[in-house]
Amino acid sequence: MSTAIPDLPVLAADDSMLSRKFGREVANYFSGSPLNRVSFLRTDHAFLNAAFAHPSTSFLLLDNYSPLAKDTSTLTYVSKEDIAVLTGLDPFKKTEEEQIKSFNSAITQPIVLFLGLDERKTGFEYREYKGNPYFAVDVTPKGSIEEKAKSVIEAVKAKHGVSFTPGARLLTLNAPEAAIYAQARALLDWNARNPFCGGCGERTMSINAGTKRVCPSTDLAGIPEGGEPKKRADCPTRHGVSNLCFPRTDPTVIMAIVSSDGTKLLLGRGKRYPPGWYSTLAGFLEPGESIEEAVRRETWEESGVHVGRVIIHRQALPNGETINLGNDPELEDAKWYTFDEVREAMGMSTVGFGDAVPEGEQRKLRIPPQTAIANRLMAAVVEGYLGPPPKI
Amino acid sequence: MSTAIPDLPVLAADDSMLSRKFGREVANYFSGSPLNRVSFLRTDHAFLNAAFAHPSTSFLLLDNYSPLAKDTSTLTYVSKEDIAVLTGLDPFKKTEEEQIKSFNSAITQPIVLFLGLDERKTGFEYREYKGNPYFAVDVTPKGSIEEKAKSVIEAVKAKHGVSFTPGARLLTLNAPEAAIYAQARALLDWNARNPFCGGCGERTMSINAGTKRVCPSTDLAGIPEGGEPKKRADCPTRHGVSNLCFPRTDPTVIMAIVSSDGTKLLLGRGKRYPPGWYSTLAGFLEPGESIEEAVRRETWEESGVHVGRVIIHRQALPNGETINLGNDPELEDAKWYTFDEVREAMGMSTVGFGDAVPEGEQRKLRIPPQTAIANRLMAAVVEGYLGPPPKI
Repeated sequence: MSTAIPDLPVLAADDSMLSRKFGREVANYFSGSPLNRVSFLRTDHAFLNAAFAHPSTSFLLLDNYSPLAKDTSTLTYVSKEDIAVLTGLDPFKKTEEEQIKSFNSAITQPIVLFLGLDERKTGFEYREYKGNPYFAVDVTPKGSIEEKAKSVIEAVKAKHGVSFTPGARLLTLNAPEAAIYAQARALLDWNARNPFCGGCGERTMSINAGTKRVCPSTDLAGIPEGGEPKKRADCPTRHGVSNLCFPRTDPTVIMAIVSSDGTKLLLGRGKRYPPGWYSTLAGFLEPGESIEEAVRRETWEESGVHVGRVIIHRQALPNGETINLGNDPELEDAKWYTFDEVREAMGMSTVGFGDAVPEGEQRKLRIPPQTAIANRLMAAVVEGYLGPPPKI
Repeated sequence: MSTAIPDLPVLAADDSMLSRKFGREVANYFSGSPLNRVSFLRTDHAFLNAAFAHPSTSFLLLDNYSPLAKDTSTLTYVSKEDIAVLTGLDPFKKTEEEQIKSFNSAITQPIVLFLGLDERKTGFEYREYKGNPYFAVDVTPKGSIEEKAKSVIEAVKAKHGVSFTPGARLLTLNAPEAAIYAQARALLDWNARNPFCGGCGERTMSINAGTKRVCPSTDLAGIPEGGEPKKRADCPTRHGVSNLCFPRTDPTVIMAIVSSDGTKLLLGRGKRYPPGWYSTLAGFLEPGESIEEAVRRETWEESGVHVGRVIIHRQALPNGETINLGNDPELEDAKWYTFDEVREAMGMSTVGFGDAVPEGEQRKLRIPPQTAIANRLMAAVVEGYLGPPPKI
């Protein structure tokens, strides 16, 4: 993988609200959520019921991953009345055990995802936990809830005068809102992509307020009302803890490789980038591999460059800087750029990553925007945000 | 999750071969493989064929995740002749495309996993890549290959006078061998747990030499020889890149929380630990969460303790050290231990984590062994392996 996707950071600069609370720290765009996830309350339906019903509660709606938003920088939250047609007014009335027992694979389940409590605001309380609750609801029209979802979409658009904004790349949300959207999108995406069980092939259902999927042992599909549910074959995910039941969070590395003389950055371009665009190298961690090993492996595979020690940032090996694109055919090009060239690219007019570049600027280096980890990594190196390399 | 599983490290001490090459670095047991994965060659069947057939090639066999081993500290590698009954002598003869076209869901596919090249040894060469090839083969008897797998198991045990050693905890492999075993086990485990497609529920097949699973568009199951394969319904994983096709590497955090006065370590005990056993807290990262946020969230949820800045190691917030087990019901206990108590536990007689403790030592703190990240984290704090906290 060669483009820098905002995901698990190796390193980035200091630009979030967390920095003010905890000191300078790695916190990239799409992390740094203001919400307390209180993850241990996701199975507590008394809590979820109360949170869902409270007037201070905010619901973020996503249609095919596009959030309801006033514009590209402002998410729109709605109230439970706006979505009741789809979710009902008490989707957490049954206990989780009861929900699993009443599983019917022929009925599409609307995903009502609990995101957390915003402790900066007051109003809602449950035991010692305080703060305004946030949920996300998937309103993508599909399956047996297609018509209900469509009616919710039309109603909220009309009532609030807003629309579902496509394209995460276009979002210019502030950091806390971006983190809320990232959490909602990642979980709704995971639910949508995993309707079936990887262990046995049967349909799964969403529990733990959208954060877990189980493979029920019975199914009411096709059974007349009041009848006994059909027993399903045994499934390995029902024995012990199975990671198939939990969201995927694929760890990636994104790296700014510095030449051994400390003057140049190694950047690469994917085969489908428009002319002039370059970014930091990146890739996925493999099983049984440390973060540092993944950085060295992906850099060598994609560019042929041999990387030395990796901790926060680190230079290439003195004799290992020769670029070789012949290993992994993924990149179209990789080049060493001087810090000055990178600094110049940082100051250039902002165009969307991959968009056409204005006339007169087409022969210059173009790099991803400030919201990208790739950009923050480059800034950390060429602007010295993180100071000299640590001695440890 | 409260026990420290050897997985993605937050931090650990300096004890691997990599340290000598790249300087002091985080590299835990089960990472630090001596093999070059040359991951871009996994689709190159000319390469895989040549590697499989070469006399220098080593095959590691796993039966239900237990490796063939001489004893708990020595893996046994076999030759292609030992496994030919199960895999054939040219399992990579067809191209990947041909393999996918001849997919038959009624036939159990033996997983032949390419691990990498050991560049410390010479003999095998392919283009500019040199080193002895390593493969792992899953010989667990199951499905249509049950009898063949059993015969391989019996033959290798008799021929080599060794057995399949159960229980990863009992292994005292040296670090490079442990990393090879970890890679093999993780990938064979992932293949075994994902026989079905999470996107459409149909059976999947293993490609890329064991490192990718695809959902073929056709199936020869039940079709007479020479007949046209059955077309399967459309599947979302066939459009674009789907992470469902790739191995899961669930990122976890494991943290040594230091009291604000710098004298004590926070340790917890799971509900099923035998008396006296404690370990560092740990947990899984959630979507849209940075590593540091996961450390703070899991620590607060499990112990009630509020953690400040997290980079390499970092102290608890001065007024946040009160332990509260009432949030997440996962831990039975959590306690602050002085550095001296932890040092004493490090020097105590080694018993397996969770095993009975010798008479006379039962009232002392017991911690996981040196191969555990939990232990290395504690050592990093109380033995000062990493020096003072970095200034960045």
